[in-house]
Amino acid sequence: MSAAANASTGTLFGVGVGPGDPELLTLKAVRVLAQCPVIAFFRKRSGNANGNAYAAAEPHLPAMRRDLAMIYPVTTEYPVGDARYDEAMTAFYEDQAGLIAAELDAGRNVGVLSEGDPFFYGSFMHVFHRLSPRYPTIVVPGVTGMSACWTAATTPISYGDDVLTIIPGTLDADTICERLRATDAAVFMKLGTNFPKVRAAIARCGLTERAIYVERGAMKHQRVMPLAETADAVAPYFAIVIIPGQGRRL
Amino acid sequence: MSAAANASTGTLFGVGVGPGDPELLTLKAVRVLAQCPVIAFFRKRSGNANGNAYAAAEPHLPAMRRDLAMIYPVTTEYPVGDARYDEAMTAFYEDQAGLIAAELDAGRNVGVLSEGDPFFYGSFMHVFHRLSPRYPTIVVPGVTGMSACWTAATTPISYGDDVLTIIPGTLDADTICERLRATDAAVFMKLGTNFPKVRAAIARCGLTERAIYVERGAMKHQRVMPLAETADAVAPYFAIVIIPGQGRRL
Repeated sequence: MSAAANASTGTLFGVGVGPGDPELLTLKAVRVLAQCPVIAFFRKRSGNANGNAYAAAEPHLPAMRRDLAMIYPVTTEYPVGDARYDEAMTAFYEDQAGLIAAELDAGRNVGVLSEGDPFFYGSFMHVFHRLSPRYPTIVVPGVTGMSACWTAATTPISYGDDVLTIIPGTLDADTICERLRATDAAVFMKLGTNFPKVRAAIARCGLTERAIYVERGAMKHQRVMPLAETADAVAPYFAIVIIPGQGRRL
Repeated sequence: MSAAANASTGTLFGVGVGPGDPELLTLKAVRVLAQCPVIAFFRKRSGNANGNAYAAAEPHLPAMRRDLAMIYPVTTEYPVGDARYDEAMTAFYEDQAGLIAAELDAGRNVGVLSEGDPFFYGSFMHVFHRLSPRYPTIVVPGVTGMSACWTAATTPISYGDDVLTIIPGTLDADTICERLRATDAAVFMKLGTNFPKVRAAIARCGLTERAIYVERGAMKHQRVMPLAETADAVAPYFAIVIIPGQGRRL
């Protein structure tokens, strides 16, 4: 895909494993993972679980494999834009790309698990930019977490000629309001500690009544409720707020 | 999901079949389709093919089934907002919902094929709004056409804190420019006869160099090229223009 195939090196697979439900992998993702003796995945340092992408993929992984856990050195310890975050993460991606390259050089295929779709706000792209110029690379698109969330909320997100805007909760409140005023439908990602700010910005735009809060869409303990009924506290990272469009209904 | 299950009626399934490649259906979509003795799908009147959703799903459909082709009475004969379009389409959706309801009443499950994701600009939602209050309804999310397009272009669409805006090509040029100025990354859908207008609006915003044209992503005869190299003509309906974000790369 990105580099000429070389019989002696392995292929880098960026595999979208969908939103969390093992049944929401594509047939292609399942086929590709079976060809990967090395499975790489991102996880956070705290907790003892291998993360949501791994949990979704696990039933489909080959029995004979080696797991390469890529453990984020930091997650939310520094504010957005803090140079220490960027430094730590750049060194981390550099290291992990090196470990994956060593496997590819040894002729082994590496499957990098990506929650949702690999090219939609995924960590995989940091590996992709480093390795795809040098190794054959195949990316398998996946069902996004936001699709699982609006499905969980049982509501279409966009109709007809609606503009749909995906807004990271990390933006400041004024920018969020500007973006909201210029769209018909919206999805807020990356809530976490940003949740109270996002909630207030949506209220300021008079859109609270249309907003739905979805936690862990297509995962265990999924929760769906009107935004108006949520408490003004920190939300999990995998929480999303959706504001469905009101476009043409025929 | 939307109505209490009733042992005597069938279940309405809205099944996302992904962007066109039969391997990009989810395991859940494949399992669900096998339980549907009636398969409903939208297609246009012209041509003799059953459309892209049907082609993607066909290898997975049960041998013993009845196909219910829902043939759009109009597609692009009227300009956007023309009352005749809305009238014809409303009557059409009403009729088709009635035909599906008759199957459900007879105790048969009906699988409605939806290209991409059923709740993301899909025709399924017009059936969904009419029938889900009355029949048990299950929606299966799918890989969107836009995911297939940025995968085909081998480029991440959004990074870090990028705002991503999905813009229907049906909007007027000034609105398109406003939306483009307020976003980091963009996806243009519904090109067709709108393509020259969209192309000119992107040029007016100085974004042509970053834009990529993708035709029939994840389908046969897929084409990818820089927008700057396209001819200023009508594009197929399944063409998309993407402008990838330039957010945080670590």
